[in-house]
Amino acid sequence: MPKQVDHRERREAIARALWRVVERRGIAHVTMREVAREAGVTHGALQHYFTSRQAMLSFAMDFASEQASLRVGHGLQELGDRPHPREVLRLMLTEMLPLHADARATSRMSAAYVLEALHDEEIHARAHSGLAQGRSLVEQLVRQAITDGYIPRDRDPVIESNLLLALTGFTAFIELNVIEAQDVLTAIDAHLDRLFTKTGQAG
Amino acid sequence: MPKQVDHRERREAIARALWRVVERRGIAHVTMREVAREAGVTHGALQHYFTSRQAMLSFAMDFASEQASLRVGHGLQELGDRPHPREVLRLMLTEMLPLHADARATSRMSAAYVLEALHDEEIHARAHSGLAQGRSLVEQLVRQAITDGYIPRDRDPVIESNLLLALTGFTAFIELNVIEAQDVLTAIDAHLDRLFTKTGQAG
Repeated sequence: MPKQVDHRERREAIARALWRVVERRGIAHVTMREVAREAGVTHGALQHYFTSRQAMLSFAMDFASEQASLRVGHGLQELGDRPHPREVLRLMLTEMLPLHADARATSRMSAAYVLEALHDEEIHARAHSGLAQGRSLVEQLVRQAITDGYIPRDRDPVIESNLLLALTGFTAFIELNVIEAQDVLTAIDAHLDRLFTKTGQAG
Repeated sequence: MPKQVDHRERREAIARALWRVVERRGIAHVTMREVAREAGVTHGALQHYFTSRQAMLSFAMDFASEQASLRVGHGLQELGDRPHPREVLRLMLTEMLPLHADARATSRMSAAYVLEALHDEEIHARAHSGLAQGRSLVEQLVRQAITDGYIPRDRDPVIESNLLLALTGFTAFIELNVIEAQDVLTAIDAHLDRLFTKTGQAG
């Protein structure tokens, strides 16, 4: 189905153009016209791929989440066959932070999407569902790590998952050069070390 | 100096109008014209108080920070004469989160300001300095609590301050109803309990 592949590829190219507008100029500049200009297509051609700004934004957000998941997937492959759950969580958390160029693009897209969500019901529903999915994935990993004896059994999986997710709060401090990348990683490692205090023999 | 007081009061009323635009419609709608409309003044009158959108935004951000500090100040008074450092930090952290209407207005203003900072050098410098000041204040409290024997001496004050600040990451999860306010407070308390493990007899 070459036509469909082409359609998808063009939508992805437009999504990347949208990310660049968000990253360089901010969400306020994300209009159909501005994204068409950045993508090098006509306004009419853009409307062929997206019927509204909202549809375009949501596709760009979904695509950003997919790319972040792919990066985590590649990172997991490098961790080998049976990665330690601490390393899996570390990878997920650090890929959510603007610590390198690709992650910065998706992080800014995500921050802008959350702000849009506050004023748009449909985007709110989609952003809620994306964050809630991420939250459950983290909680599932934490529960499994407790079952497998990596995290002490007296830890509450809901509290621990919420505290791990809160670490995404480093985003603004990294973006505004208030906390250095190395200090962020040191703090995340300290937090993970206090959570994963056991060696993984269940029981 | 009644004239200066009046000038200040009018600027504050405009700043509050700007917050309402940010809260209800988002930073993209913050233009001189829109804020003038929301404040119920003419565009010309607005320009008498602020020469540019940037100046107006920065004043509104400074005013938001001041109001947050005032709320923390009132909270401290309620804690009595010699408040426990754990409670001081808890108050500062929770007032930074959108857990009630006033805090939500300042939190949204602050999130919007950080996004603007990514595309504006002057706002970047001001936002950096605001966050860096907040960061030093937290570090100063943590260092004092270690000295006074509330936090164990083997804790690294830089790591602990950074982890406390990262808790502002709950903002998006609260705004999008992914984590309930009560669960956020439970997680913050769990984090503080693990930090303040001593009774405060120095030495």
